[in-house]
Amino acid sequence: MSDITTKVFRESLNKIVLVQLKGGRKVRGKLSSFDQHMNLVLEDTEDVSESENVKKLGTLIVRGDNIVLLSPPPNR
Amino acid sequence: MSDITTKVFRESLNKIVLVQLKGGRKVRGKLSSFDQHMNLVLEDTEDVSESENVKKLGTLIVRGDNIVLLSPPPNR
Amino acid sequence: MSDITTKVFRESLNKIVLVQLKGGRKVRGKLSSFDQHMNLVLEDTEDVSESENVKKLGTLIVRGDNIVLLSPPPNR
Amino acid sequence: MSDITTKVFRESLNKIVLVQLKGGRKVRGKLSSFDQHMNLVLEDTEDVSESENVKKLGTLIVRGDNIVLLSPPPNR
Amino acid sequence: MSDITTKVFRESLNKIVLVQLKGGRKVRGKLSSFDQHMNLVLEDTEDVSESENVKKLGTLIVRGDNIVLLSPPPNR
Amino acid sequence: MSDITTKVFRESLNKIVLVQLKGGRKVRGKLSSFDQHMNLVLEDTEDVSESENVKKLGTLIVRGDNIVLLSPPPNR
Amino acid sequence: MSDITTKVFRESLNKIVLVQLKGGRKVRGKLSSFDQHMNLVLEDTEDVSESENVKKLGTLIVRGDNIVLLSPPPNR
Repeated sequence: MSDITTKVFRESLNKIVLVQLKGGRKVRGKLSSFDQHMNLVLEDTEDVSESENVKKLGTLIVRGDNIVLLSPPPNR
Repeated sequence: MSDITTKVFRESLNKIVLVQLKGGRKVRGKLSSFDQHMNLVLEDTEDVSESENVKKLGTLIVRGDNIVLLSPPPNR
Repeated sequence: MSDITTKVFRESLNKIVLVQLKGGRKVRGKLSSFDQHMNLVLEDTEDVSESENVKKLGTLIVRGDNIVLLSPPPNR
Repeated sequence: MSDITTKVFRESLNKIVLVQLKGGRKVRGKLSSFDQHMNLVLEDTEDVSESENVKKLGTLIVRGDNIVLLSPPPNR
Repeated sequence: MSDITTKVFRESLNKIVLVQLKGGRKVRGKLSSFDQHMNLVLEDTEDVSESENVKKLGTLIVRGDNIVLLSPPPNR
Repeated sequence: MSDITTKVFRESLNKIVLVQLKGGRKVRGKLSSFDQHMNLVLEDTEDVSESENVKKLGTLIVRGDNIVLLSPPPNR
Repeated sequence: MSDITTKVFRESLNKIVLVQLKGGRKVRGKLSSFDQHMNLVLEDTEDVSESENVKKLGTLIVRGDNIVLLSPPPNR
């Protein structure tokens, strides 16, 4: 992960991000930490894959190579 | 990503690009930044997979290894 | 795995973690050890993929590249 | 990409190549540039996956790891 | 494979391990050797994917990148 | 690709080889060059996936990571 | 491939091995050479995927990353 991508992640720290995983799953939580492989630690995570059936997941480590898209918070 | 590919990305900065992902999904947005792994930051992104059902996605980080094709703007 | 991700794993040692694998399988066990590839050794592991049919698996080595998500214990 | 493969690509520059992608998709365009990862920039690209339904794609960056086969021009 | 994972493998040498492979296949045999890529040599191996139809496989080399889970012997 | 594998490829140069690709496709052509990633350049290539429907493909670059099996000529 | 795995391969040279590939295909032949990526050269190879329909394949190069399991000869 280069400096410029790192910067966007750093600005998203302690803010809510939406993460879309391979296979279609989506989780949303507060970005607590990340590393250069895009491994993430999310707090207060919810599985929002099905909007009518949101599931609480608590703290979660996401392995970076499963990530397709990540939406940082609107106003970083 | 080599110098020559980097050059095409650099010329596309702040312009609208169309990104086709593995699995058939397509997103379109303003290329805000990129790195050597082809990780992208897109602004004002839309999911244009279904032309009759475009969805607003806002700012988006695209993990490079999910990208199949990228269309730079017509007149760079 | 960077320092910050390592820290979360270290705080989870000897505690119960839930591991979600590629393909949808879920195992839960006491994190006995881990390495920089996210290979894990779990003790007293249960396969909790089907909540109505939990299977005892005992000690288990999980190869890191199969991991999608990992839930550390609630109060590390 | 070794010297010998690079030579075939270099001889194909500014000529029409046919690229077959993982999943069966085929695109054809003028090879404008390439790098050592086989990332390509194609100009005046057409999606020729369905011969009865050719679609204009314009300029296109192809991420190298999606490529299966590439047909260089007949007389390089 | 780090020191700590290596230690669990070393303690399992000459003992029966159960190996679960990508795609759901399971083989069980005596761990005769292993290397840092998790490539294994198993002796007296049985394919135990179907419990009612166990097949003798004899000595087997398992390529490490196909492994999902490995159960070391209960009392190492 | 090690020395010993390279030797078999070198002995096959300018001879007809059969290449079996991931997904079941088979192409046959004269091996014109290869590199250490097993990227191949084939001349006078035919798609022989369906024996009753052989298709002429001409010169072809095969990206090495799509190759499963390669049959060198009978008498190298 | 480490020393210990290499040793098993070396002891299998010029003997019949059974190779199980990703996707379920099985080939059997005399191990003529191998390299550190587990690329193999097999002689007098047969496709034994279907026991009632064995096909002669002659000499074959197997790209190592397609291998799941390999059975060395019973008495090395």
